[in-house]
Amino acid sequence: MGRIVCFGEVMLRLGPEGYYRFHQVDRFVLNYTGAEANAAVALSQFGMETEVVTKLPDHAIAKAAVAELKKFGAGTRFIQFGGERMGVYFIEKGASQRASKVIYDRKNTAISAVRPGEFDWETIFEGASAFLFSGVTAALSDTMPDVLAEACEKAKEKGVKIFCDLNYRKNLWTPEKAQVAMKRLVKYVDVLVGNEEDSEKMLGVKAGASDVRKGELDTASYVDVAKQLQREYGFEAVGTTLRKSISASDNKWSGMLYTNGTAYLSKEYDIRIVDRVGGGDSFTSGLMYAMLNGYDSRKALEFAVAASCLKHSIELDFNLVSVEEIVALMEGDGSGRVQR
Amino acid sequence: MGRIVCFGEVMLRLGPEGYYRFHQVDRFVLNYTGAEANAAVALSQFGMETEVVTKLPDHAIAKAAVAELKKFGAGTRFIQFGGERMGVYFIEKGASQRASKVIYDRKNTAISAVRPGEFDWETIFEGASAFLFSGVTAALSDTMPDVLAEACEKAKEKGVKIFCDLNYRKNLWTPEKAQVAMKRLVKYVDVLVGNEEDSEKMLGVKAGASDVRKGELDTASYVDVAKQLQREYGFEAVGTTLRKSISASDNKWSGMLYTNGTAYLSKEYDIRIVDRVGGGDSFTSGLMYAMLNGYDSRKALEFAVAASCLKHSIELDFNLVSVEEIVALMEGDGSGRVQR
Amino acid sequence: MGRIVCFGEVMLRLGPEGYYRFHQVDRFVLNYTGAEANAAVALSQFGMETEVVTKLPDHAIAKAAVAELKKFGAGTRFIQFGGERMGVYFIEKGASQRASKVIYDRKNTAISAVRPGEFDWETIFEGASAFLFSGVTAALSDTMPDVLAEACEKAKEKGVKIFCDLNYRKNLWTPEKAQVAMKRLVKYVDVLVGNEEDSEKMLGVKAGASDVRKGELDTASYVDVAKQLQREYGFEAVGTTLRKSISASDNKWSGMLYTNGTAYLSKEYDIRIVDRVGGGDSFTSGLMYAMLNGYDSRKALEFAVAASCLKHSIELDFNLVSVEEIVALMEGDGSGRVQR
Amino acid sequence: MGRIVCFGEVMLRLGPEGYYRFHQVDRFVLNYTGAEANAAVALSQFGMETEVVTKLPDHAIAKAAVAELKKFGAGTRFIQFGGERMGVYFIEKGASQRASKVIYDRKNTAISAVRPGEFDWETIFEGASAFLFSGVTAALSDTMPDVLAEACEKAKEKGVKIFCDLNYRKNLWTPEKAQVAMKRLVKYVDVLVGNEEDSEKMLGVKAGASDVRKGELDTASYVDVAKQLQREYGFEAVGTTLRKSISASDNKWSGMLYTNGTAYLSKEYDIRIVDRVGGGDSFTSGLMYAMLNGYDSRKALEFAVAASCLKHSIELDFNLVSVEEIVALMEGDGSGRVQR
Amino acid sequence: MGRIVCFGEVMLRLGPEGYYRFHQVDRFVLNYTGAEANAAVALSQFGMETEVVTKLPDHAIAKAAVAELKKFGAGTRFIQFGGERMGVYFIEKGASQRASKVIYDRKNTAISAVRPGEFDWETIFEGASAFLFSGVTAALSDTMPDVLAEACEKAKEKGVKIFCDLNYRKNLWTPEKAQVAMKRLVKYVDVLVGNEEDSEKMLGVKAGASDVRKGELDTASYVDVAKQLQREYGFEAVGTTLRKSISASDNKWSGMLYTNGTAYLSKEYDIRIVDRVGGGDSFTSGLMYAMLNGYDSRKALEFAVAASCLKHSIELDFNLVSVEEIVALMEGDGSGRVQR
Amino acid sequence: MGRIVCFGEVMLRLGPEGYYRFHQVDRFVLNYTGAEANAAVALSQFGMETEVVTKLPDHAIAKAAVAELKKFGAGTRFIQFGGERMGVYFIEKGASQRASKVIYDRKNTAISAVRPGEFDWETIFEGASAFLFSGVTAALSDTMPDVLAEACEKAKEKGVKIFCDLNYRKNLWTPEKAQVAMKRLVKYVDVLVGNEEDSEKMLGVKAGASDVRKGELDTASYVDVAKQLQREYGFEAVGTTLRKSISASDNKWSGMLYTNGTAYLSKEYDIRIVDRVGGGDSFTSGLMYAMLNGYDSRKALEFAVAASCLKHSIELDFNLVSVEEIVALMEGDGSGRVQR
Repeated sequence: MGRIVCFGEVMLRLGPEGYYRFHQVDRFVLNYTGAEANAAVALSQFGMETEVVTKLPDHAIAKAAVAELKKFGAGTRFIQFGGERMGVYFIEKGASQRASKVIYDRKNTAISAVRPGEFDWETIFEGASAFLFSGVTAALSDTMPDVLAEACEKAKEKGVKIFCDLNYRKNLWTPEKAQVAMKRLVKYVDVLVGNEEDSEKMLGVKAGASDVRKGELDTASYVDVAKQLQREYGFEAVGTTLRKSISASDNKWSGMLYTNGTAYLSKEYDIRIVDRVGGGDSFTSGLMYAMLNGYDSRKALEFAVAASCLKHSIELDFNLVSVEEIVALMEGDGSGRVQR
Repeated sequence: MGRIVCFGEVMLRLGPEGYYRFHQVDRFVLNYTGAEANAAVALSQFGMETEVVTKLPDHAIAKAAVAELKKFGAGTRFIQFGGERMGVYFIEKGASQRASKVIYDRKNTAISAVRPGEFDWETIFEGASAFLFSGVTAALSDTMPDVLAEACEKAKEKGVKIFCDLNYRKNLWTPEKAQVAMKRLVKYVDVLVGNEEDSEKMLGVKAGASDVRKGELDTASYVDVAKQLQREYGFEAVGTTLRKSISASDNKWSGMLYTNGTAYLSKEYDIRIVDRVGGGDSFTSGLMYAMLNGYDSRKALEFAVAASCLKHSIELDFNLVSVEEIVALMEGDGSGRVQR
Repeated sequence: MGRIVCFGEVMLRLGPEGYYRFHQVDRFVLNYTGAEANAAVALSQFGMETEVVTKLPDHAIAKAAVAELKKFGAGTRFIQFGGERMGVYFIEKGASQRASKVIYDRKNTAISAVRPGEFDWETIFEGASAFLFSGVTAALSDTMPDVLAEACEKAKEKGVKIFCDLNYRKNLWTPEKAQVAMKRLVKYVDVLVGNEEDSEKMLGVKAGASDVRKGELDTASYVDVAKQLQREYGFEAVGTTLRKSISASDNKWSGMLYTNGTAYLSKEYDIRIVDRVGGGDSFTSGLMYAMLNGYDSRKALEFAVAASCLKHSIELDFNLVSVEEIVALMEGDGSGRVQR
Repeated sequence: MGRIVCFGEVMLRLGPEGYYRFHQVDRFVLNYTGAEANAAVALSQFGMETEVVTKLPDHAIAKAAVAELKKFGAGTRFIQFGGERMGVYFIEKGASQRASKVIYDRKNTAISAVRPGEFDWETIFEGASAFLFSGVTAALSDTMPDVLAEACEKAKEKGVKIFCDLNYRKNLWTPEKAQVAMKRLVKYVDVLVGNEEDSEKMLGVKAGASDVRKGELDTASYVDVAKQLQREYGFEAVGTTLRKSISASDNKWSGMLYTNGTAYLSKEYDIRIVDRVGGGDSFTSGLMYAMLNGYDSRKALEFAVAASCLKHSIELDFNLVSVEEIVALMEGDGSGRVQR
Repeated sequence: MGRIVCFGEVMLRLGPEGYYRFHQVDRFVLNYTGAEANAAVALSQFGMETEVVTKLPDHAIAKAAVAELKKFGAGTRFIQFGGERMGVYFIEKGASQRASKVIYDRKNTAISAVRPGEFDWETIFEGASAFLFSGVTAALSDTMPDVLAEACEKAKEKGVKIFCDLNYRKNLWTPEKAQVAMKRLVKYVDVLVGNEEDSEKMLGVKAGASDVRKGELDTASYVDVAKQLQREYGFEAVGTTLRKSISASDNKWSGMLYTNGTAYLSKEYDIRIVDRVGGGDSFTSGLMYAMLNGYDSRKALEFAVAASCLKHSIELDFNLVSVEEIVALMEGDGSGRVQR
Repeated sequence: MGRIVCFGEVMLRLGPEGYYRFHQVDRFVLNYTGAEANAAVALSQFGMETEVVTKLPDHAIAKAAVAELKKFGAGTRFIQFGGERMGVYFIEKGASQRASKVIYDRKNTAISAVRPGEFDWETIFEGASAFLFSGVTAALSDTMPDVLAEACEKAKEKGVKIFCDLNYRKNLWTPEKAQVAMKRLVKYVDVLVGNEEDSEKMLGVKAGASDVRKGELDTASYVDVAKQLQREYGFEAVGTTLRKSISASDNKWSGMLYTNGTAYLSKEYDIRIVDRVGGGDSFTSGLMYAMLNGYDSRKALEFAVAASCLKHSIELDFNLVSVEEIVALMEGDGSGRVQR
């Protein structure tokens, strides 16, 4: 199988260890992350060949980010160096009734200043089997949708399957801007991942309301949205995670996959959260692995959900689990028994 | 609104990180705390002007305590320096069926040696709107009730509203001593906070027994106690927290406010505990904020309970949350969803 | 009462702090442990005189292990120094659906090379009241069963009560090898601790299947196994822990004791796990304390179960709790209320 | 004495603990700093009333910065909130022959977007006795020199003494831009601090070359530069630090003060460096304290040099020492003897 | 050889890691220490049998102190539990020109309330070969000199050799009080350790002044003082350390031993200080080991000086080195070469 | 230029942070290292293509080691998985007069069990330009010299330049065994690195004695040894480091290169040691870089010495510096000035 190309921003994540608030600490835990980088690392852990495509400034912190991607097996040879700065986000993990808090410092980054023509997509997609981008990448600047369109054109030309995770971020753009960009880009997409809010804000496809803050989800409306999306854009498949937030410490977690006119619902996991950031990315990368490896739809969904369930038990953004661990969970062992 | 004066001991808290026992570690997490200081810090986070009034020895550790109060916005200009030592307490956080363990080293402190006439209450209460002291302060030494009476007299004279949190500590005094002191002091008090045990041990007001160790509380008896207290001392309001201890890791948490002949019961929260120390202080300070800002009784109670619910998700003694976070929880968002 | 002799390997345990995976960290938490050492330390915390008997290489890390045993009160004067290396095991704590992971590096250790005649059992058992060894010790090498038989012979001769915790470890030996060794050794044993899997793999005694990975246990079959064991080997008592694994974060925990034809079932605890390693050793040591101190069977079982329930709330392998704390839990206080 | 107003950027500093390189660590030590904030904190530790004037974005990390300033006694009431982001710099501490490494991420900050008229200098300088700004502040944006000129005008009008620390930063601007801005601004300045490189790059005043990388300094040329500066701009005094860099671990440290036609040279200290960042700021703030408190020129210089000598023994940017500690060092006790 | 009895206070030491100041940190490194406990631990590391005799309150922090003593091999069976509190001292390590800072919180401790008759000296000294106490112990309370006299009487009676380290602490008592107590106690002493300041303040024996803050020592006057002391009290030997404080980071270190009319001067070491607390105790314990093991005077002195030289390279108060390491240094290997 | 192949063991290094002794800590800093892996990482930092060839067990700790190598750019595709265990070494860093202490646990490792034929040297050396192995690799087992000979044969056949670092380790083998193996292997070698002790113990080539423990080196004898070696084996060049150990904290550091009949001596650096492990490997890798890139002999030596000088300022075994940093030091900037 060919390499998987993941295009998007790589950022520095900073935040207190454990459950301290920002103004309580004099140390920040740091790691390097981004929606597509998270997916690339997860896929590398599953044994796939991946390439993270991004642009970073030419300094030692950016080099440390690249080193971290290498460490976890992601390809870095198409990363370009230059430009102003790299994105940073600060995160304070929540607990119980206190939500996690995220502060973005992502403007004027090297990646956001990229213009069409800067990346050699011809070479990048040579022999590739899949391409992943997220709505976050499209939101980074006004030129980014053009860059993404350019990449998608080349990917299509090369017969590369395109995955898109909508990932709406209200701090990065408005629904109006998002719809202009995403309606254009999803036309290239084969497999779409997104929840109701994403669909409404980014593609204008609505369903009956469910108040996500109350921890209740109306699965039927998710299926309805997926149908509409499939009808309008002809996606091979539409997937979504179903998160019921009991509190910042406990979630119920499952997923839905709509394909070929059928909606599959996964089993649901009761999760004690260690770190929920990257939960969506781990679902997407799990789905990519399963679909690219020819799993049937039900199994593909269960793999993606089990993969992302495990992500919640792991610190920081990367989903550092093996295919074996995911399969064991899919097959029913969530007991946490020690093997020795 | 005028400043809020909080009089009491400021101590050094020391204990292992996480769930290690005392004899397992070679590092102690430290912070500076005290019932009234905790309230002052919380009120400062809510945007109120506060002053911590205390006496500390003239050395660098005490100066570090003052710096910490300043950091979180509490006023420190009336703090006096001199005397022997500052109080210390050691705490080992419990988990699951293992209870937290507290060791006091609070004798012969600078504050406990204070005598009437040492503080310039005239200046301290000039323009103040509220005064807070706790039963812990009264317990510090034989001279402290006199000092508190002196302060209360002046506060009353200046039209300052007096709040008292009973806070019985069996390691500091006996019920007999406590009743002599507190029956005299609560006569000045406008708003009293205390639970059944406090009322019985410190004011001799009993109700039907509920075995707090079993995690069951008889709300009716709490109301009964509040009524008796109101009848006997004419308090404007009597509040109490209602903690159901499932284990050291999980509590159910609500509160009751009795005022004008009505008993209000708040909603109840299922809490995953990060640190429960300062839970009572955060209820008191929440109630002070709400009452001083003219919230109606139901809303005042819900604010105080939501404030103290959030405290349990925060490490160490201070309740470092904003009014916005509390209001969001009051209004129903305890889902812990990340905003980004 | 005489000393309690605990014979087995003392290892270095290494693993990430909290819930990080092995390849995420640049620090390992370390401690020194082993099934019998864990029991010795727990018994020392209960006020008993203990001796850890083992062999360690003559270097500074081994000396650090001995220092750690001394710290927690275990006797170390019969420990021999010499030989190649000491055992190491790496552990990554699981959370939620992710299981803990253990990697053994226990081959070619000093203890595994011990041969009969190396320890002066005559002196070691002089005035002793109990002897503990586990199946892990027997599994360490081909010569170890002989060494254990030698020790058991001498213990029997001296009237010392022999406790054995079966503790099957599939990474150390096969059922075939285990049965040869253990069928011979348990003939000396007075009190046996082991679960169904242990009994089947190590003594060939089977019962109806219960799928331990699903968190369900069939208590009846446990009793059945105990009966068979008692019938075949004439044990004074057979005990077992009953762990229902909900996830790596939550377990239900109880125990069973079969003695004199009666099977006792303890109450069951809902545990939020801090560290579950050493849970079995804490049950065994709790049972030893209770039986050696003449508790009746029901109380002995409840003591052992409460002791091991508390172990789960403590970091690392040692059960650092006091008799008072265990008794308080047995008597019903698992509320985690702070005493101050 | 009136307050001391310190105007400039407050940044987040991030870097590895100890001597690790950026790409070796997963924790960054953090603190909040800036040339003028450092001076304000040092002056607050000396007992002076200070105000840090700056603009920060309205988010929790900026609030943490303000809390940190409060902690160390600096006034924060004139700080404005709004705008895009706050500056960040990354630092890797050097050792032996390896130099410290600094990466700036200071563009597009809230402070750099400030325009004349945004700060109420009238109120800010009411009752003030001194004003400090550095060349770094002037370098932040094209509008900043205008803002500084506005502030200086008002300061002069109010009879406030103006101190300026030249602090050339080649990563922020070119000599050409610097000279346009600084030649205009230093006309308002009473006391100037700067080294040879600063004077040449920022004011075009050259002297004989000394190769600073080789650890040798030609004191005579420093005096020559100071004379020229004094002649051209009529400064009350010109001060400079004299750093001889043996290595990143060892420096020789002294200072020179030129005033009233006399050049004073201080004694020289052999320093084992703990953290050299903020060394210049601590000299400036020491000089301000001494001059504002009427020390004679020699003593003022020795105070400033001793203050900044001690800074090198303190972690992070702030000079957290007392007047007593500085005076003891000035008077000859640099032996490091413990007092107990 | 019989056991060595060390009588004195065991305290909790708390302070920042590395070179942070007190008000910069939220963690304190902790350990348990005391002049005599330090000596006992060092002697235990050398393979001697020791007993720490002290009184501690009956709580978990004191138990942790005892566990720490056990860990490092010191005997603890004569330690009594009861009384109010244990002593605490806070320490901030200095660097370069900044001195270390110590804050005592040692009043009203359990040990200071001890009265004659509380310890069973008969049993304690049974079979002992040496007794150590320091002037610090005598300073703890008004009753302590009586307790020490009682102990010394019994030690003399049992033929136990008495060592005393004068250790003047100006924060614990005045020279007047010290002289009353110590002139009485040193009459029992066989081997005295103390420097010029100790001798003058505690025994009224003066010599020519040397300004210790300047890092210069007049060895001749040390010898003179030793001679006077020997003449007046008939000591078998008088030893002293000779510390030349270059800075808080660098010291020159040697020692002098006066015995049988001869003054021996050791070689001098250039020390890069890791932690200098306990330096004196490590000299005393080194001297005790060497004299009790029959080293000749020159070798005994060199052993004590080398032992205490190494102490400076070790964190915290205990001198955790082996006899082999000390002998290697005595014999000339201070090169720090790695052996592998 | 082709890849550089580095063949040898990859181990887990464990030790206390800072200057704590083994038995003082409950955390170990960990990293993954080995003489040839260290060289590969350094060369990767210099921008060279490298491959680490080794064998590791198939478990998560070994995978973490591989991830670490990837992180720092070393190639890992020829690493084989299987066999028993991986090597471990424990290190306690020395300071001042206290030497660092190393404990090896390197027996029965996967790499030591490798036999000729296991690695596909044909593919490994395809297109390679250099091969590095050290004497440590030859010492790992009796079969290892054969494996090395096999590799050298293939390397020679492919025209690959062979570098060997003698690296005598007395804990791994005797001089007798070493000479048998190394006399055979060095015949393949083009460039040899080794000091006097190495040459004598491993090749039987002696020179006049210099007592390395005293910090004195007789350069002439080094040159003499190099000449003998060159004459006997026809090396293209013989290099050696010249370490003068003042103490564990301070060393003087230079190097010598003998080639074409000329002995070059480098400049000497005064080093404040952060971590000296890997110092020799950093010299070898510096020399390899310089020679492979065509530096002249003097410049090659100065590069190697500057590279390894900088290594001493970096924590852990890898020399994480850039070519630019090394060149800056070679050219005279060792002042440690901050660039900003």
